[in-house]
Amino acid sequence: MLSNLNSMRTVFVPDLALATDLYELTMAAAYYDNKETAEATFELFVRSYPKNRSYLLAAGLEQAVEYLSQLRFKEEHIAFLKKHPTFKNVSKEFFNYLKNFRFNGDMWAIPEGTVFFTDEPILRVTAPIIEAQIVETYLLSLINFETLIATKATRVAQSARGKGVVEFGSRRAHGPEAAVLAARASYIGGCIGTSNVLAGYLFDIPTYGTMAHSFIMDYDSEEEAFERFCKVFPTSRALLLDTYDTIEGAKKAVSSGVNPTLVRLDSGDRYDLSKKVRKILDEAGLKDTKIFVSGDLNEYVLDDLTSRGAPIDSFGVGTELVTSRDDPALSGIYKLVAVRRSGTIIHRVKTSEGKRTIPGAKQIYRKYGQRGEIQEDVLTLENEDRPPGTVPLMLKVLDKGRLIYKLPTISLIQDRAKNEVAALPLSFRSLTGSEKPPVKLSKELDNLTNSLWDDPV
Amino acid sequence: MLSNLNSMRTVFVPDLALATDLYELTMAAAYYDNKETAEATFELFVRSYPKNRSYLLAAGLEQAVEYLSQLRFKEEHIAFLKKHPTFKNVSKEFFNYLKNFRFNGDMWAIPEGTVFFTDEPILRVTAPIIEAQIVETYLLSLINFETLIATKATRVAQSARGKGVVEFGSRRAHGPEAAVLAARASYIGGCIGTSNVLAGYLFDIPTYGTMAHSFIMDYDSEEEAFERFCKVFPTSRALLLDTYDTIEGAKKAVSSGVNPTLVRLDSGDRYDLSKKVRKILDEAGLKDTKIFVSGDLNEYVLDDLTSRGAPIDSFGVGTELVTSRDDPALSGIYKLVAVRRSGTIIHRVKTSEGKRTIPGAKQIYRKYGQRGEIQEDVLTLENEDRPPGTVPLMLKVLDKGRLIYKLPTISLIQDRAKNEVAALPLSFRSLTGSEKPPVKLSKELDNLTNSLWDDPV
Repeated sequence: MLSNLNSMRTVFVPDLALATDLYELTMAAAYYDNKETAEATFELFVRSYPKNRSYLLAAGLEQAVEYLSQLRFKEEHIAFLKKHPTFKNVSKEFFNYLKNFRFNGDMWAIPEGTVFFTDEPILRVTAPIIEAQIVETYLLSLINFETLIATKATRVAQSARGKGVVEFGSRRAHGPEAAVLAARASYIGGCIGTSNVLAGYLFDIPTYGTMAHSFIMDYDSEEEAFERFCKVFPTSRALLLDTYDTIEGAKKAVSSGVNPTLVRLDSGDRYDLSKKVRKILDEAGLKDTKIFVSGDLNEYVLDDLTSRGAPIDSFGVGTELVTSRDDPALSGIYKLVAVRRSGTIIHRVKTSEGKRTIPGAKQIYRKYGQRGEIQEDVLTLENEDRPPGTVPLMLKVLDKGRLIYKLPTISLIQDRAKNEVAALPLSFRSLTGSEKPPVKLSKELDNLTNSLWDDPV
Repeated sequence: MLSNLNSMRTVFVPDLALATDLYELTMAAAYYDNKETAEATFELFVRSYPKNRSYLLAAGLEQAVEYLSQLRFKEEHIAFLKKHPTFKNVSKEFFNYLKNFRFNGDMWAIPEGTVFFTDEPILRVTAPIIEAQIVETYLLSLINFETLIATKATRVAQSARGKGVVEFGSRRAHGPEAAVLAARASYIGGCIGTSNVLAGYLFDIPTYGTMAHSFIMDYDSEEEAFERFCKVFPTSRALLLDTYDTIEGAKKAVSSGVNPTLVRLDSGDRYDLSKKVRKILDEAGLKDTKIFVSGDLNEYVLDDLTSRGAPIDSFGVGTELVTSRDDPALSGIYKLVAVRRSGTIIHRVKTSEGKRTIPGAKQIYRKYGQRGEIQEDVLTLENEDRPPGTVPLMLKVLDKGRLIYKLPTISLIQDRAKNEVAALPLSFRSLTGSEKPPVKLSKELDNLTNSLWDDPV
């Protein structure tokens, strides 16, 4: 089913079936032994934005598809569960069922690179309840993380005002897999590439790299290090200037005669230093040498540097991007919205304090204004008529477990993201804003919601 | 070499050699083609604490060992690099060298579960400079992340005041691998277990789980859901109470007659609700039913709940723990401290603004007070004599690539961590403190540092 995937294997965890919360498996056993054959619909959505955000950018769908298609219980996984004290009274038949487990459900989703808002389902799964439930944890961790970082990247890219941003954060990502997923999400959100080679290899993302301070420190002088590096990389003569002192480093870059294509500044007052270094380069006739800046950057610092016209050509953004440091968790949730039992659909809500949910399998219809700007989304039940002048956002991706959606290439996803963010009214793109989501419920959905909130069961 | 590993395969990324920053590989090529055969020593250390921390707890060594032992370049990796435009002028010999690449260096490290402070090396690598350099990115992302989370977990565990904390955050972790590594680090830092089944499977960590709201919502009444669940799990009758209304849920848990072993509260004012639910349970004679609380908890909320004596028996802590939400990045760095060329050791420093480093391969000697409390650490050059009354912290783990250290079991690591944190003076354990690190340099190291800072090259 995965012949139309664009990337190579990106599911890293080998024991997929166990990469989940234990309660998904206890519930599965409870459903199985209670002969619960209902079909369930779950929706994945976000209840509130990370700090200072007024929109989200969808990412992670391709990995979600790969996960659902590869999910299997191996003998050793089943043996592990059988020995788990909690499962002591579970039937043998349940473990046999796990042996043949496949995800054969339907999935609808918003395409990657699409802007969406709180309370809107980014993904919807309909399947026999055990299948729909077991996949919750893994889907959440993928979609939450990639969406978090893709959204952060749109903010960073916007603040760069057209200058290139390279994602540089692998060393501070939450482990080596997070580094790769963050590189992918950052590219979707508008970075021009990444330092992470594996992300380049798997996803066809451009990779960039210069040299570390250690390379300079290995040699007895900066000039020697510069010359030796450029001898091996005559077409990418990128020099790091700040190992000892940025201004002295710049002078040596000039006097070494290697005619650098790029110099990197990684510490100090980057505004002030970029001006001074630009002057040193220009006075030496090195007008084509680009200035690349890195070191604890984020969207706020970039906005400051570019709005003041610092002579910087491109940026490397690491830690703050790949951890979404100002708010490092997207609180996406995966909630039961409907159950179909004996052919009848029963809509479901949760009414916990502060955590009420909107019932029913839903579609999102988007209305654009005359200049193409996003005006309003209408949440409807999935089978309602399309409101006039709107476009549906959720597409069917899996049909009974089979991929029926052509997953776009990553550069198409990036293009989509760029257009989507550009279609947001300016107030939504503010770095410090908190706009109310432009989302309303259809009359039918609103009525259903109110009646169920009053009387949930 | 890995016969004495305790865990199963925990390196998830398949293409290990590419899971790095591009500049590690450009530098490798530059060294190779410049015939640079120097032996280099790098140290991994942290320059400043995450917010409100005054100590760190070491974690991630076992995964680091596994990575170093498995690191190989496959044919397809080399083909990818050969096609990369940056490598256009690199010699064929370099790519042949990569084919046979193995990490054959030495590694020293602080054992996992040890308390350490800023500027102290948690890990030291000595190897031919290409080998020592290439491993930087992967080692940093592992050690930074596990250490970040293990440290956070010590804060959460301390605030629980002896009550059990289960790590519950897989769905908000930065991808499925981060979920597993966070579960491991949380256990090291003092959690009693995790919801993540794969972490249980790989690392022998106890796994816990109850039910989700969806299980309750699938059935037409809470009572029905409670009864059906307990029928399948007669020995772990754990009920979730807040799907619709916590107090009503508690009354139904009582009236259903399932005699729950545990009830879970996941929303609302947990202090107030735990008291009311305890009263309902006690009045029904269910004095043995435990109360488990979850939902957006962290060390500050736990401290508040336990200091006010809320009748809660154990906690589930998720998002805030696995993302270290109040400060989600540990800024560990990996710096060249010495080079050995033609038998002579040359000490190295970086003097970038705000980023100066301490030269030389180092050892850490710890001095304990009369009541066993950590009094002071002395940083020395590795070959200095042990200061009287101190204990060395760094042990040799790899000798020419061979594992010579008996990696402890995870429960031994957890025990060690508990003792280590208990040995910290109280002021260091404050949830909001910022104590100065109790670290001094030996006279020899201090002199060397000052002379190199004055005249680095």
